[in-house]
Amino acid sequence: MPRTVNLNADMGEGFGAYDIGDDAAILKIVASANVACGFHAGDPNTMRRSVEMAKARGVSIGAHPGFNDLWGFGRRRIDTGLADLENMVAYQIGALQGIAAACGTRVTHVKLHGALSNMAAESYDIALAAARAVKAVDPELIYLAQAGTEMIRSARDIDLAVAEEVFADRAYEDDGMLVSRKKPGAVLHDPAEIVAHVVAMVRDQAVRSVNGKRIPVKVDSICVHGDEPTAVAAAAAVRKGLEEAGFAVVPLPELGQ
Amino acid sequence: MPRTVNLNADMGEGFGAYDIGDDAAILKIVASANVACGFHAGDPNTMRRSVEMAKARGVSIGAHPGFNDLWGFGRRRIDTGLADLENMVAYQIGALQGIAAACGTRVTHVKLHGALSNMAAESYDIALAAARAVKAVDPELIYLAQAGTEMIRSARDIDLAVAEEVFADRAYEDDGMLVSRKKPGAVLHDPAEIVAHVVAMVRDQAVRSVNGKRIPVKVDSICVHGDEPTAVAAAAAVRKGLEEAGFAVVPLPELGQ
Amino acid sequence: MPRTVNLNADMGEGFGAYDIGDDAAILKIVASANVACGFHAGDPNTMRRSVEMAKARGVSIGAHPGFNDLWGFGRRRIDTGLADLENMVAYQIGALQGIAAACGTRVTHVKLHGALSNMAAESYDIALAAARAVKAVDPELIYLAQAGTEMIRSARDIDLAVAEEVFADRAYEDDGMLVSRKKPGAVLHDPAEIVAHVVAMVRDQAVRSVNGKRIPVKVDSICVHGDEPTAVAAAAAVRKGLEEAGFAVVPLPELGQ
Amino acid sequence: MPRTVNLNADMGEGFGAYDIGDDAAILKIVASANVACGFHAGDPNTMRRSVEMAKARGVSIGAHPGFNDLWGFGRRRIDTGLADLENMVAYQIGALQGIAAACGTRVTHVKLHGALSNMAAESYDIALAAARAVKAVDPELIYLAQAGTEMIRSARDIDLAVAEEVFADRAYEDDGMLVSRKKPGAVLHDPAEIVAHVVAMVRDQAVRSVNGKRIPVKVDSICVHGDEPTAVAAAAAVRKGLEEAGFAVVPLPELGQ
Repeated sequence: MPRTVNLNADMGEGFGAYDIGDDAAILKIVASANVACGFHAGDPNTMRRSVEMAKARGVSIGAHPGFNDLWGFGRRRIDTGLADLENMVAYQIGALQGIAAACGTRVTHVKLHGALSNMAAESYDIALAAARAVKAVDPELIYLAQAGTEMIRSARDIDLAVAEEVFADRAYEDDGMLVSRKKPGAVLHDPAEIVAHVVAMVRDQAVRSVNGKRIPVKVDSICVHGDEPTAVAAAAAVRKGLEEAGFAVVPLPELGQ
Repeated sequence: MPRTVNLNADMGEGFGAYDIGDDAAILKIVASANVACGFHAGDPNTMRRSVEMAKARGVSIGAHPGFNDLWGFGRRRIDTGLADLENMVAYQIGALQGIAAACGTRVTHVKLHGALSNMAAESYDIALAAARAVKAVDPELIYLAQAGTEMIRSARDIDLAVAEEVFADRAYEDDGMLVSRKKPGAVLHDPAEIVAHVVAMVRDQAVRSVNGKRIPVKVDSICVHGDEPTAVAAAAAVRKGLEEAGFAVVPLPELGQ
Repeated sequence: MPRTVNLNADMGEGFGAYDIGDDAAILKIVASANVACGFHAGDPNTMRRSVEMAKARGVSIGAHPGFNDLWGFGRRRIDTGLADLENMVAYQIGALQGIAAACGTRVTHVKLHGALSNMAAESYDIALAAARAVKAVDPELIYLAQAGTEMIRSARDIDLAVAEEVFADRAYEDDGMLVSRKKPGAVLHDPAEIVAHVVAMVRDQAVRSVNGKRIPVKVDSICVHGDEPTAVAAAAAVRKGLEEAGFAVVPLPELGQ
Repeated sequence: MPRTVNLNADMGEGFGAYDIGDDAAILKIVASANVACGFHAGDPNTMRRSVEMAKARGVSIGAHPGFNDLWGFGRRRIDTGLADLENMVAYQIGALQGIAAACGTRVTHVKLHGALSNMAAESYDIALAAARAVKAVDPELIYLAQAGTEMIRSARDIDLAVAEEVFADRAYEDDGMLVSRKKPGAVLHDPAEIVAHVVAMVRDQAVRSVNGKRIPVKVDSICVHGDEPTAVAAAAAVRKGLEEAGFAVVPLPELGQ
């Protein structure tokens, strides 16, 4: 019986008249989609379209909450109180649940977006505020988060189901954190290199740092991107590589079953 | 056994640093609260506070969706497509459900706000789009809407439970519609007159127009306001008057039980 | 000495991470640019980029105010009070003037966007509110507006300089108004047809309706679009056609000089 | 001849249906008003009202730009790029200039709001980005900023006229910075103490720290508040105290004349 792994991508990150990313293309590759919820991107219409497209393809649906900062696309750190964070995460999950219910389906996971995710990766308190929101809205939700971060630790502390993800196209430091985008080599571009990187991480359940160090992590899911043609091509190669290596790519709720 | 009737009011219509209305005062009077959902007013924090306060007092909780128009407080008519309307209503209901779940309680009704409500009162198509959203998100929700309008008609057509409301402090035309605020006498100010008006409407299950005409309607709920001290005093008088007339004021889900 | 005519296009209609239209391409064709001012689209960065690009090419700069409705891209009619309209137009013009000053250049015209323009074309009161804002902010501004509409009439009534525009790719009714986009034939697609249409309108100072009727109007400027590749190609053909017909395409402030 | 000093306060910080602060009351006390420009608070209508009221009372008008964060009222630090900061400050100044021009008056100073001001007080780069925007929009503008901060230093470096302000009701550390609001004694409440504090600072051209240390600064202006009845009363007492001590309270452009 093949071992299972998940592939996830963000989607529905347009707004009103604006489109971004090729959602239709990436939906043919991933098994789980993180849908923007109207704060950093997305609106009720983009959410509806994303949910309907994902449902039609059997892709599991997750909320992708971010800061209420459309101008900054949720990429700017905002110094926000913990109660505010908890409430704004609960709000966004609920909003997508409302849309999903209207489409006859369900939200099964949550993944934080952008600066909110980066801040939660580093700060246990912020991570816990977000995890508490997830659990309070629906204790069955799976919290998809970067492997080895405070997000994972805080979620485990409150018995929230987690799925740990690694990035297909990012290099890692010796401490298991991502190499900053400001450094050379932070982002991998060669599809063959990306596929080898991913298959190795999934097989070993470890990331290998830029210095060759092996950092054991749980690898439940691989994050890929659909915001440019080369990213979509790399994502497709990743899926093919994983399947050829004997892994079944499944939606988050079917992981490990 | 006393006959039952509902009293409802809008609440949670602040935003960020801004407050409006005396929610604590009105919550002591009404049995159901319509909570702003972040589009015309309200934010995740105001929603959380409103839900917690309502829950603590046994006041049933409703979503109060409006246009995404904070500048206009949802009072400006916006020429919006039907699919957009349906999605934005589903979004807002879901958002409040998320907050309510995080507070360990539930949303049990929906009432449209401001210009959205006015447009739905007049247009069957708009009313139907909103009613469809309500039913699709949760078929158990009660649709609280102005008695005798297209909102009621459309909801009945899709078998959505409705509660029909009248306004404590508004005069009615012979066709059962509200007298425009632009006309003199549109708004009643004398508490004694308001109480007499309400008790008569609930007892007769009819509104009486400014010309003395009796228009039979179903009167499940009375809408009162908490946005100024005199309104709160009038609302308290209405509740007292109804109870003295032998009616039990109950949350919407307990109506007619 | 050649007669002069103006070509104008909207630009800077992205927002934050979102881009729309090919501003660089259309700037090589037009002589005046209408820059979105942050309400229906645009942000301080897009405005800065637009102003710098226009300045570098000698393209005159106009403010393009719209409704504060990013979700609807300013295309939804919003029932707005006249004082609100006047203030929001003044605000947006000023905002672009601030950016232009920071770039060492000036705003020389104003053109309303989308639903605001459509409403002002039909309603003298709305048109006058907008025209008053333009004149009050800077009486030297040129008001660029659809030929033959209430916008032109109201501007003349308050001695505001106007430039009358026609649309390169739109068919006209017998009363000089645009054929609704809901009707077949409302939009012209064939570049040769578009060029012939434009050159005839400029030469005759008249539009010719779909029924062949000749409606005399003043044709100071031709509106073209840059939001899709075919539109850019058609715009380039229009410029070439006008120049071959002996017209000099000039910025709005140089018209008729 | 009496020495001159300025009193300033923020105003126009409502939004749409929301009001905050008693602008009419504070306008009777101060000589310069900092008007919110639509990003952290304010809208075209509040700006118009503020400008008209200030003009009627001979109070000089300043732009009060902040982060585009209505939910956080501009009090949350947002990690924003320097070019973004510069453009968003230029935008907001221009917007108020547009409104002021429509009212037949002029903007004569700029004061940063909330978190933006706090960040600029500490970071020379951020301060310089804001100062560059001020100067680029209009080199005649006076930059009103907290005495002794990076804002003052950066403005002097680019030859932008500055006015240095101290806070009537805040305690100072030995380094001249404000005592954090998180510490006891950060805010003064006793009107007599506030008046004595202000008159001493203006007379000595120095602040006195909580430990009794005297820190020489330039004191051109005193910042007071109008957001609660006690603040307005304290502000009035400050003005009276200054005048009794022989100082003339004048608008910023008349300082030192």
